[in-house]
Amino acid sequence: MPIFLAHLGPSGTYGEEAAVLHNPEARLFPLPSHLAVIEAVREGRANEGIVAIENSLNGPVVEVTDDLIHGTGVHVQGEVVVPVVHCLIVAPGEPDIKIIYSHPQALGQCRGFSQKCFPKAELAATLSTVAAVEKMLELPCSSAAIASARAAELYGAEILSRGIQDSKSNETRFFVLALTDHSPTGDDKTSLCFSFGEDKPGQLVSVLEEFSKRGINLARVESRPAKTELGRYVFLVDLAGHREDLLVAEAICAAREKATGIFKILGSYPRYQG
Amino acid sequence: MPIFLAHLGPSGTYGEEAAVLHNPEARLFPLPSHLAVIEAVREGRANEGIVAIENSLNGPVVEVTDDLIHGTGVHVQGEVVVPVVHCLIVAPGEPDIKIIYSHPQALGQCRGFSQKCFPKAELAATLSTVAAVEKMLELPCSSAAIASARAAELYGAEILSRGIQDSKSNETRFFVLALTDHSPTGDDKTSLCFSFGEDKPGQLVSVLEEFSKRGINLARVESRPAKTELGRYVFLVDLAGHREDLLVAEAICAAREKATGIFKILGSYPRYQG
Repeated sequence: MPIFLAHLGPSGTYGEEAAVLHNPEARLFPLPSHLAVIEAVREGRANEGIVAIENSLNGPVVEVTDDLIHGTGVHVQGEVVVPVVHCLIVAPGEPDIKIIYSHPQALGQCRGFSQKCFPKAELAATLSTVAAVEKMLELPCSSAAIASARAAELYGAEILSRGIQDSKSNETRFFVLALTDHSPTGDDKTSLCFSFGEDKPGQLVSVLEEFSKRGINLARVESRPAKTELGRYVFLVDLAGHREDLLVAEAICAAREKATGIFKILGSYPRYQG
Repeated sequence: MPIFLAHLGPSGTYGEEAAVLHNPEARLFPLPSHLAVIEAVREGRANEGIVAIENSLNGPVVEVTDDLIHGTGVHVQGEVVVPVVHCLIVAPGEPDIKIIYSHPQALGQCRGFSQKCFPKAELAATLSTVAAVEKMLELPCSSAAIASARAAELYGAEILSRGIQDSKSNETRFFVLALTDHSPTGDDKTSLCFSFGEDKPGQLVSVLEEFSKRGINLARVESRPAKTELGRYVFLVDLAGHREDLLVAEAICAAREKATGIFKILGSYPRYQG
């Protein structure tokens, strides 16, 4: 039986790149939104789903984070980190570039390159980096697109320049979701979230201490609104170790006692080996 | 000399409502973006500026948060909390409502009301809640808009129903920015941010403990990407007390020693009295 792997489509997006990186054998299942990907896993229409969770420049993907906190039934089974490498893509031939198409975020991330190399070119926004390649192909003699190498390949276009983003440290982290999390491998991470029934001094620190005093590193601490009232939050923590590791299990047990609101383990999964 | 108070325009937005709530005497100075408001304060074209910093449903306003972390020269001098009360607004008369206009976020927040009361109406997106009122006035016999009471008042339109959002706990918190922060009043808050030079277990906890062990309540802990690489963060903390209060000053001094990256006090300001 093939594995059905849902991801944010269309073909050529970084979501598809993450899916191929995670499992090149899987049957890809592109869907129009991250929430549709989560639903497909929840309802069993896909075995696994890949969703973006954070970007090194833009921070958390909030609709995914909130759905993992408040929804049920899906677990984090893996993580994938995809470097965002923007390319300047043109139609075969030697176009005179008067207009550069891309998603506004990609245009912003490549502003230095565009101003230096094409100071007179007009920058035009499209709905996705893939849509930029399609628009460019409608004006093959006078335009270029900023998108991934994979998008260029899929559309048979040429890469004029690779890695044109102004900051080289542009990476997106994805979660692999499934109905269960992953068994221990010896180099794992665990994601969990918690909140408090009432607001008291020191309660966040007292939960975090359960991890730090056992030498468990917190790779990430994030907060999201609890959606009940201003000033109430749900905290998300990614820690080093598997929930079945003895020290982690002890810390989770102690933390659960202290978190008087929500306490939910999103999953344990192997650390991504870059 | 009048106080020039910059805010996100146009007239009728919640940003203007926050500005009026903060200082009804001020000369209002509407600008097209939050970053333009911060710039106006930084360059002295406005004495004060009001920017949204977090919403109880959607979380932090990231472009404002990142500018306060990485920019210089402006300080937090106050806070204002504005309840988001959406109203169903129509032209005078008795329209047959076939279409409801609003900003997508407001349409989403009032979905239950629309489905229950106007199951056949089409929902149409506009760029702002104020633009929705303008669109509605072009089709006065067959449409309605979702916007604030103030927008209805400014356009001479009628409020058919008030407080139609599905969740009553919808509030936005604004920061009042100026070139200096506020002197102590006895009931203050302090906002600061910090990061670490390298990633070591327990370092976030060790900074937060400097506050908790002195009984200083942390009203909010938020993280934002450091923008250097994935997995590196800047932490933002809002705490109870003024930076000149003895215990707070001691805790800040100790925390500054432990934060090996950025350490920046955004400002001390009176707690908002609702």
